[in-house]
Amino acid sequence: MSELVHEDEVLDDLQRDSLMLIQKRKGFKFGMDAVLLADFAKDAPSERTIDLCTGTGIVAVLLSAKTDAPEIRGLEIQHEICDMARRSVLYNGIGDRVYIDEGDVKDAARLYGKGSFDKVTVNPPYIRSDNSLRSPLGAKAVSRHEILCTLKDVTDAAGALLRTGGKFFMVHRPSRLADIICCMRGARIEPKRMRMVQPSADKAPSLILIEGTKNGGNELKLMEPLCVFNGDGSFSAELDEIYGRG
Amino acid sequence: MSELVHEDEVLDDLQRDSLMLIQKRKGFKFGMDAVLLADFAKDAPSERTIDLCTGTGIVAVLLSAKTDAPEIRGLEIQHEICDMARRSVLYNGIGDRVYIDEGDVKDAARLYGKGSFDKVTVNPPYIRSDNSLRSPLGAKAVSRHEILCTLKDVTDAAGALLRTGGKFFMVHRPSRLADIICCMRGARIEPKRMRMVQPSADKAPSLILIEGTKNGGNELKLMEPLCVFNGDGSFSAELDEIYGRG
Repeated sequence: MSELVHEDEVLDDLQRDSLMLIQKRKGFKFGMDAVLLADFAKDAPSERTIDLCTGTGIVAVLLSAKTDAPEIRGLEIQHEICDMARRSVLYNGIGDRVYIDEGDVKDAARLYGKGSFDKVTVNPPYIRSDNSLRSPLGAKAVSRHEILCTLKDVTDAAGALLRTGGKFFMVHRPSRLADIICCMRGARIEPKRMRMVQPSADKAPSLILIEGTKNGGNELKLMEPLCVFNGDGSFSAELDEIYGRG
Repeated sequence: MSELVHEDEVLDDLQRDSLMLIQKRKGFKFGMDAVLLADFAKDAPSERTIDLCTGTGIVAVLLSAKTDAPEIRGLEIQHEICDMARRSVLYNGIGDRVYIDEGDVKDAARLYGKGSFDKVTVNPPYIRSDNSLRSPLGAKAVSRHEILCTLKDVTDAAGALLRTGGKFFMVHRPSRLADIICCMRGARIEPKRMRMVQPSADKAPSLILIEGTKNGGNELKLMEPLCVFNGDGSFSAELDEIYGRG
C-alpha cells in the first residue's frame, strides 16, 4: 500500500497496534501533546467522538487503538492535510471506525448537528494571532497560530457539538489557561479535570490537559502532575507507558 | 503586655522578627495557606497594601516583616476577631504601619475609595455556601464558608480597590480554580502568575496561589509547584525557608 505515501512524505510508527501515520518530510509533525491528549481522553466512554483541528489525524488514529469507540471523526480545514489523514486511515485499515472530514470548525454544528457527539478532543493552534509577525500562510503556520480558528471558535464548536454530559478534552499551553477556562465556560463546557504536564517534578508546566463536561456542575479536580522526565533525565515510567514503550 | 491576651486566647510565635499572633484557644487558627500567601505576595513593591478577610491579621502582620510597605491595612467584618487582630498589632509594636479596620468587604470601595491600593491580598473563606449543611454561625464557620462574603464579593472589592497595574494575591482551593479565574476577570484583574502547592512532587495540588494585575494583559505564567514535603516525609527546604526555619 506504499502508493498511499507520497514522495514528500514519511510513515511514522505510532508504537501502538502497528499503527502508522503519514506526515510531511518537511512540515508540521505531531508532538507529544497529541499523544498525551489521546491518552488523557481515552477513558471516557463514547459512541461518537470527534477530533477538531485533527491535522494529520494523529489523535483520531490513536483513539481508534486506545478506545473501542465505534465512530471517531476528525475534522480538518486544510485540503492537503485532510487528504494525508485520509490516506493514513486507509493505510491502517481503520476506515470502518475512523472518518476524516474536510471542513471548517466554525461550521461544525451545521455539518454534524447540535448535541450529536459525546466526546470532543482538540489539540488546537496554540499561539494567539497578532496579524503582524506571522510567517507565510503555510500549513505549518495554520497548525500553530490562530489563523483559521481561535480558541473561542474551538470551544464554541465543541459546546455546540456535545450533548449534555458529553466530554471535552483539550491540550494547550499554560499561558492561555485563563482564556481556556473563560472560553470553555462561555460555551457551557464546565472545566472538571486538569493535569499539568511538566518536564520534571521541579519544573514549571509546559502543557496542560483539561477535561470539561457540557452543562456540568462547577467543581474542578486538579490531578497530580505528569512528569516527562525522571530526575536523572530518563523518560518517566508513565510517559513510557503512554507511548507504548517499556 | 500580657493584658493584651485574654484568658481564652494564646500567643503563637510566627518565627519571624519575634512576631507573635493572638489566637483563640478553641477557634479558627491560621494555617499554612496564610503563611504561603504572605510569602507569595511579598516581592511586589507596595505603598498601600490591604489584606481582605484578614481575620486574626496573620497576613498583614507577616507582610510587615516580609516587606517594607509603609502602610498595611487589614479589613475584618467580625468584631471580636477584629479586636483580637488589633491587639496583635499592639503587642508586636507595629501600629505605625499595620492598621486593622472593622468593616464589610462589600463596602471596601466606599470605605477606602476606588483605586486607592496597589496591593490586595486575601485568604478568603474557601467553601461555597449551600445554605443547608452549615454549622452554627460561629466565627469559625464564617472563616471557612462563604457566609458573609463570596468569592465574587472578594474579587469585586479587590478590583475596585486596586489602581491600574496594582497587584492581587490570593490563596484558594484548586477545586474553585474556574470560579477564581472567571471572578478575577469579571473584576478586571487579569491572572498573571499561578503556583500549585502540593503535599509532595507526585501528589495533586491542595492549594493554589494566584497573582493578578488590575487591567493587565492576558498572559498567565504557571510556576514550578511548591512542595510541602520531601519524598522522605521531611519538610522541603523551600517550606522551611518560608517559615523562617532552617
